[in-house]
Amino acid sequence: MKLPKELIEKFREPYISELENYINSKVETIVKVKSKRLLETKNGQKYLLLTFEDKTGILRAIDWFNAEKNDAKINVGNVVRTQGKVVIYDGRIQLNILEDSNIIVLNEDEYNIERFVSESKMSSESAKTKISYFIDTIKNDTLKKLLIEIFKNDENLSEAFMSAPAGLRVHHNYVGGLAEHSITVASICENVSKIYTWLDRDLLITGALLHDIGKIYDYEISSHGIELTQKGELIGHIVSGFDIVKEKLNKINASSELSEKLLHMILSHHGELEWGSPVLPKTPEAYVLHMIENMDSKLNRMHNIKERELEINPEKIWSDFDPSLGRRILLKHDERG
Amino acid sequence: MKLPKELIEKFREPYISELENYINSKVETIVKVKSKRLLETKNGQKYLLLTFEDKTGILRAIDWFNAEKNDAKINVGNVVRTQGKVVIYDGRIQLNILEDSNIIVLNEDEYNIERFVSESKMSSESAKTKISYFIDTIKNDTLKKLLIEIFKNDENLSEAFMSAPAGLRVHHNYVGGLAEHSITVASICENVSKIYTWLDRDLLITGALLHDIGKIYDYEISSHGIELTQKGELIGHIVSGFDIVKEKLNKINASSELSEKLLHMILSHHGELEWGSPVLPKTPEAYVLHMIENMDSKLNRMHNIKERELEINPEKIWSDFDPSLGRRILLKHDERG
Amino acid sequence: MKLPKELIEKFREPYISELENYINSKVETIVKVKSKRLLETKNGQKYLLLTFEDKTGILRAIDWFNAEKNDAKINVGNVVRTQGKVVIYDGRIQLNILEDSNIIVLNEDEYNIERFVSESKMSSESAKTKISYFIDTIKNDTLKKLLIEIFKNDENLSEAFMSAPAGLRVHHNYVGGLAEHSITVASICENVSKIYTWLDRDLLITGALLHDIGKIYDYEISSHGIELTQKGELIGHIVSGFDIVKEKLNKINASSELSEKLLHMILSHHGELEWGSPVLPKTPEAYVLHMIENMDSKLNRMHNIKERELEINPEKIWSDFDPSLGRRILLKHDERG
Amino acid sequence: MKLPKELIEKFREPYISELENYINSKVETIVKVKSKRLLETKNGQKYLLLTFEDKTGILRAIDWFNAEKNDAKINVGNVVRTQGKVVIYDGRIQLNILEDSNIIVLNEDEYNIERFVSESKMSSESAKTKISYFIDTIKNDTLKKLLIEIFKNDENLSEAFMSAPAGLRVHHNYVGGLAEHSITVASICENVSKIYTWLDRDLLITGALLHDIGKIYDYEISSHGIELTQKGELIGHIVSGFDIVKEKLNKINASSELSEKLLHMILSHHGELEWGSPVLPKTPEAYVLHMIENMDSKLNRMHNIKERELEINPEKIWSDFDPSLGRRILLKHDERG
Amino acid sequence: MKLPKELIEKFREPYISELENYINSKVETIVKVKSKRLLETKNGQKYLLLTFEDKTGILRAIDWFNAEKNDAKINVGNVVRTQGKVVIYDGRIQLNILEDSNIIVLNEDEYNIERFVSESKMSSESAKTKISYFIDTIKNDTLKKLLIEIFKNDENLSEAFMSAPAGLRVHHNYVGGLAEHSITVASICENVSKIYTWLDRDLLITGALLHDIGKIYDYEISSHGIELTQKGELIGHIVSGFDIVKEKLNKINASSELSEKLLHMILSHHGELEWGSPVLPKTPEAYVLHMIENMDSKLNRMHNIKERELEINPEKIWSDFDPSLGRRILLKHDERG
Amino acid sequence: MKLPKELIEKFREPYISELENYINSKVETIVKVKSKRLLETKNGQKYLLLTFEDKTGILRAIDWFNAEKNDAKINVGNVVRTQGKVVIYDGRIQLNILEDSNIIVLNEDEYNIERFVSESKMSSESAKTKISYFIDTIKNDTLKKLLIEIFKNDENLSEAFMSAPAGLRVHHNYVGGLAEHSITVASICENVSKIYTWLDRDLLITGALLHDIGKIYDYEISSHGIELTQKGELIGHIVSGFDIVKEKLNKINASSELSEKLLHMILSHHGELEWGSPVLPKTPEAYVLHMIENMDSKLNRMHNIKERELEINPEKIWSDFDPSLGRRILLKHDERG
Repeated sequence: MKLPKELIEKFREPYISELENYINSKVETIVKVKSKRLLETKNGQKYLLLTFEDKTGILRAIDWFNAEKNDAKINVGNVVRTQGKVVIYDGRIQLNILEDSNIIVLNEDEYNIERFVSESKMSSESAKTKISYFIDTIKNDTLKKLLIEIFKNDENLSEAFMSAPAGLRVHHNYVGGLAEHSITVASICENVSKIYTWLDRDLLITGALLHDIGKIYDYEISSHGIELTQKGELIGHIVSGFDIVKEKLNKINASSELSEKLLHMILSHHGELEWGSPVLPKTPEAYVLHMIENMDSKLNRMHNIKERELEINPEKIWSDFDPSLGRRILLKHDERG
Repeated sequence: MKLPKELIEKFREPYISELENYINSKVETIVKVKSKRLLETKNGQKYLLLTFEDKTGILRAIDWFNAEKNDAKINVGNVVRTQGKVVIYDGRIQLNILEDSNIIVLNEDEYNIERFVSESKMSSESAKTKISYFIDTIKNDTLKKLLIEIFKNDENLSEAFMSAPAGLRVHHNYVGGLAEHSITVASICENVSKIYTWLDRDLLITGALLHDIGKIYDYEISSHGIELTQKGELIGHIVSGFDIVKEKLNKINASSELSEKLLHMILSHHGELEWGSPVLPKTPEAYVLHMIENMDSKLNRMHNIKERELEINPEKIWSDFDPSLGRRILLKHDERG
Repeated sequence: MKLPKELIEKFREPYISELENYINSKVETIVKVKSKRLLETKNGQKYLLLTFEDKTGILRAIDWFNAEKNDAKINVGNVVRTQGKVVIYDGRIQLNILEDSNIIVLNEDEYNIERFVSESKMSSESAKTKISYFIDTIKNDTLKKLLIEIFKNDENLSEAFMSAPAGLRVHHNYVGGLAEHSITVASICENVSKIYTWLDRDLLITGALLHDIGKIYDYEISSHGIELTQKGELIGHIVSGFDIVKEKLNKINASSELSEKLLHMILSHHGELEWGSPVLPKTPEAYVLHMIENMDSKLNRMHNIKERELEINPEKIWSDFDPSLGRRILLKHDERG
Repeated sequence: MKLPKELIEKFREPYISELENYINSKVETIVKVKSKRLLETKNGQKYLLLTFEDKTGILRAIDWFNAEKNDAKINVGNVVRTQGKVVIYDGRIQLNILEDSNIIVLNEDEYNIERFVSESKMSSESAKTKISYFIDTIKNDTLKKLLIEIFKNDENLSEAFMSAPAGLRVHHNYVGGLAEHSITVASICENVSKIYTWLDRDLLITGALLHDIGKIYDYEISSHGIELTQKGELIGHIVSGFDIVKEKLNKINASSELSEKLLHMILSHHGELEWGSPVLPKTPEAYVLHMIENMDSKLNRMHNIKERELEINPEKIWSDFDPSLGRRILLKHDERG
Repeated sequence: MKLPKELIEKFREPYISELENYINSKVETIVKVKSKRLLETKNGQKYLLLTFEDKTGILRAIDWFNAEKNDAKINVGNVVRTQGKVVIYDGRIQLNILEDSNIIVLNEDEYNIERFVSESKMSSESAKTKISYFIDTIKNDTLKKLLIEIFKNDENLSEAFMSAPAGLRVHHNYVGGLAEHSITVASICENVSKIYTWLDRDLLITGALLHDIGKIYDYEISSHGIELTQKGELIGHIVSGFDIVKEKLNKINASSELSEKLLHMILSHHGELEWGSPVLPKTPEAYVLHMIENMDSKLNRMHNIKERELEINPEKIWSDFDPSLGRRILLKHDERG
Repeated sequence: MKLPKELIEKFREPYISELENYINSKVETIVKVKSKRLLETKNGQKYLLLTFEDKTGILRAIDWFNAEKNDAKINVGNVVRTQGKVVIYDGRIQLNILEDSNIIVLNEDEYNIERFVSESKMSSESAKTKISYFIDTIKNDTLKKLLIEIFKNDENLSEAFMSAPAGLRVHHNYVGGLAEHSITVASICENVSKIYTWLDRDLLITGALLHDIGKIYDYEISSHGIELTQKGELIGHIVSGFDIVKEKLNKINASSELSEKLLHMILSHHGELEWGSPVLPKTPEAYVLHMIENMDSKLNRMHNIKERELEINPEKIWSDFDPSLGRRILLKHDERG
């Protein structure tokens, strides 16, 4: 018997972000071990300092009672079930593991992987509304038809688009990331087309919405998180995206002229050959798409770093060195305080 | 005696863009020779096909009468005075050199260099209005004070900013180019800050307006066009801009914290060390500024190529190979026709 | 009325390579001017030293009679009709322009462009035979079916494949170049698969034959020679090839597993992202294909340089610097001498 | 007293590849510890999972009896003597450590380093036969003389050539690797010279056999495996190879013309300056040698990865990321199954 | 009460380099743990092998009595207080930890950070003398005035210059490193100017002394060692140096001509854009400064590697691979023995 | 009959640098045409403005009488014999071609190529004295013996060393350039070894003197100037130098230890693989040699640019863009005026 989704949701253990509703209460929860450190107080008492995580955030926990035993039992990366009391310490929420609590390491079939795969903050409904808005504003008949074909008429494709992540590790690496990224890029492109009025707005927005659509074949969500597929390794999202959109353009009998311009935007959106585009952007619309989508990826990365590091230590000024950006980021960049 | 500017303007020879007011009339004008070609009709008549230019455009001219003599007399790059009849040929304006007209090569002191230095299409007044708008919207006191100090209180600096070009050859290489570029970048940054609300809008816009201010020391306008100064070679606009803004920040007693963030944006706006920035962008605002100003430079370049090549040949589909962009550009990129 | 091809062929002017049949006779021929130089003998007589070319070779010519007149009339690149006496001079064939001969510059519609577009030395028949041989040796049913579909059942595609060049300038830049290149690569790959028996021979040979098939859309032959098409600029032969082969694989219901391996070979055959492949070779077969096709391209280039430069000067030891190879080539490389 | 080699060989402990002859028997063997992991069954029993290796392969072993004690005693990289029962488990051979067995860590002087240095699968005899074949086919007297001088007359040199590895880590990193690599490259070059008949076959094959001969001075086999010598660091195999061959060319009074062509092939075989060749390949033979030897190195690397990873896990589809190749390799690349 | 510096110095625990005065005596000292290894003798006795360090050197220590207890207590990087007997073992000084000695881990406020921050071997006095010498030899009035202004009149600046390090990790990463580096570079530049007499000696020496002055703002000494400041991250020492010297040049009313030449040397001293200079060296003096300061940095690095590695193992021939130099260094480079 | 060298020298035409002894006199001279320009005065008189050159300098010349005739007769690059009156004009020496003078273009056998090949300003005697000085100061017996063997005992080698150029175009591209470059590098290395006393002075100086010795085989002087030899193309001076010095080291039975260190310096002196060294510098002496010889090459280049451009126009402030340096050079770099 498969329980209805709502029922499962109702009785599930609280997420980390929900613990603020349980302050000074005892809870049972399922979390992943992010770090652990066996420490000793001045007077020689051992305690275990833990960081837990799920897709909603990070949680500090302390075990004062079975520090050594639990240190031996669990490893970083384990998913565990535990009980504790939710308290406020040092201005942040903390879980004090109970004396009689057992920290149990769970197998993959003993928890729901969804607890640990993040989701975009942009809801699927909100994403659909925004895409509909863009479709409504397109004046070019062929491009409008194409977007309707993809986002309205082909439910499988549309569903895949709404739930796919847009990355493995570096940016938008969560469920719904592809839609969020595509829509943000389209929004900025819309603004840009108002300032450079000689650009073809409809082409630009259509390209922005579709540039990464091939990513629906690049990733799959397993118990290890998001993983690259065989198709992702051998073909890659740029050519898969070309393939998806080409088929739809054929279906609606788009002119070869228009088709080539749009497909060119998909193929060239990485901007440089060494970044994996088989052709350089040779239209202004392709060039703008490349620049804006690159900027959105990097800003998403920076924002994630900022959120994650300040959550752990709100006083931190500089991020750790980030290999994908090749630098440290100033976390206190904002003069508004 | 120096004539009043208005008087000079009134009696000057018409610019190329003004010839449409003289169709089928004879005019005398001063132009630069862009190309020349001695040709022969089927029946053996020699004629000289010329392209003239001034800062307002390009003009086709034909000499049917003194082809060989004038071919020998003038070189590409010469500024000449000539008379001709303005006609419409093949849908475009053309100058037919008169039989008794003499094409006279002029020395540098015999014409006004202003005829050949292009100006931004954004008027100085319009630029000032837009800068005032941005100043009005800044909420951070220090940054507002800084912009007022630079654009309102320091007339020399403000004047220099309004008239400077933003490049030698590649982009915004005309009088007023610096202001046009800075304002366009600030406009897009304003839009971007609406989408990524966690960015510091005031810092971003202030950085956008000031990032290239050091260019006022980089270029000088001579009879050879725009030239790089000794200061431009030895110090460069990035560090000159740092120097100008640092002095103003000192004057208004800005905090070192805020000063460093703003100066960092100026220093890092080229985005990569190999493009001449001594530091990488390490704040999200510095990163956005780099991306947007890079995009504006390239779009300005593409737009200039498009305008120039289509003016010469409205049927052209692909531009010539452009070394600064490293590719050809599709001139017919626009599906709106 | 369109004359039968055979008739046209019969009455056409002799090609340069055919002039050895006319020694000490007068001929009329149509050639392109490759270089010209107005010189003077010790005793002050002017003469015009010309190099002519057509697709079959290069020809030295001298005009002793109308040197200055003809120097003024013709430009390098012109196609001209002329008469002369074929002589042997300095061990090579030379054309002495006749005193009463007129060198006439021809318009594009006054000669047959075929005279100036080179053809592969591998005949179309020979190419077809070799492809049939490869198809016969393929044991994998799907791959055999695919090759039959492309080379036997789809006549348009097969014809296009047989006549396309494989390059603009650098290598195999002549009619039939694509087939010649593909077959040579397949031949070496066949040998390589005998030495590394753990490689999948059928995949390797199929990939070798199809890797550049997208080039049928990259080039068109005009009166200016071979030119890049709009599709070549915007999509490029790598992705066009993917598209052609993907469609055929779909048609014969190939498994996605096999399809991805073969398509991966097409996509990755340039070997590095910066050389335009959107993915790196990740199978040994893809890697071998990349290496062998790269070697064939470079050897073809070297061989062309050797033939061309030794034809002009059989004593030359080193080639001129070749920008595409980034070096000079030792023309006298062969010890068999 | 030094025992005769045959006697030592007869009484030595079996190699891993020989264990298939001992199934269900007890054996004593000497192996290197590749990995170890202390695990626990559901019911709480500790056991030690080990991977052993010698030059013939990899072996899974389990210690059910002294797991914790032996875990504390041995480290990864140790060479150990142990006893166990050879069993088949999960389709693969496994060693079950006996209860009363002692795992003893050996010092460097307590085992024969030869057990852990791999050897080429091409036997020394087979290599000599193949080299003789190539020498017989050379028609150029000087080159034939040179090869005889090196491979027949100079026994020390010839012996060193037969036993040297061709690499430290990346490719052909085993005894006999140099001969195997050189012969494979010569074999492919022979094939290539049949297709491009304008190449000088004798030069090509001689260069192929000798290109890496300097590696006899680059490596020495110590108890730590293959190590780079001081000469390898300071001079390098490219220049050492030049030196060896130059001396032999002087001895046989080869012409400077021929000598320079052959030495050029040795110097340029890395193909690019940044890969350590002091000159670029400037003859077609030098270019072919570079391409083929590069291909053989990479294929040897891929084949080793494939064999090693499939031996550990025959179901694996993708290799781990390989830093020297800069990618993952598809292990299931072969459609023949 | 703050003790006078001399008193503190008198009663402090001996540095490692001073232990040679205590052979066969017991001492108490404060050191940092560089490495530790728990070992066992043949007969099963556990002992703890330690390497200690302070700014004066490295010390081997052995604990025969409380090996396991102390192994558990201390971590690499801890600063500890311990007692032991100083002995000579294997030709080197060694500390034998006493049976009744307690190894105590100290907090940051329990020891003087100065014990662990290295200092240049060039004393502050010696550095000042050398700078005075250079100032005396300068003939150009403005440059002499500038150096006096910086090194004589501005005590804060001069003090900061004398104590600053010139690096974090790679070279001159110790107190006084900036002065030592600047003076060494100036000394070689002085020699170079004697050989190339057409160089401007005064400019060259002044640039050499001031090129890295901005580093006084780049680093701060904390209990974690030398750390990069926020100003170092956002502005960097190249532009900070420009700023310091520009202000002094303004103060003494230096001509813009001379100022630009000197400031250009500071800005361009990294030699290439990708190494962080915003302009390339465009004067011969700027170019020489870049080359010499680069050489001094690398030689300092090599010398440190040599000293450090030979101190640990005087028989070592090759250094470990050094990532900043990208190679191993031959430690036994000197033929003088 | 071959005339004695002194006699030839006595009766030869004056060099350009000697014309200052002929002011207001008529001379006959032999020069190369560097540039020519047919101009017209205000009143329509044609004149020919010429720049001549020989190895001693550059000369302005004007032909007022046969401007058009001579313009047609001579080409840039021709060597000509002409007569003129030496005058001072505009502060510089100028040759006014005489009315009855004939400008005669000479064949290669009609002039002495020595007139156009520059020589080092360091005389051969002075070079020998300096090398003897260095040999005297070497304390290491083997290195001293080696230098004596090369510079004293082997006259052919020594002569070749003294007369060879050290470059084709970029630096020290004149007779004696190799000796001048080697000695200058040795001089600076000597100074450097005084400052870094831990360097091996003898190794450093020997390496400095011998690092480029292979260049004696790289270049030959023909009527076209300095040309690269076949050996230079195929082997290159780095490996040729290794070969020369290796042979001499063998002859004097140098230890392999010392030989490898010295040969390593020759092989690694280009400093980076991509600059043609097959190994990176791995000893401090090799590293210093690379840095100093690189600096000397670039300074020689800059000095030549400065001298050449100021000779043409003493008011010039910036050099033209120099492709080998990748920048313009400030000609007025010297504050001493």
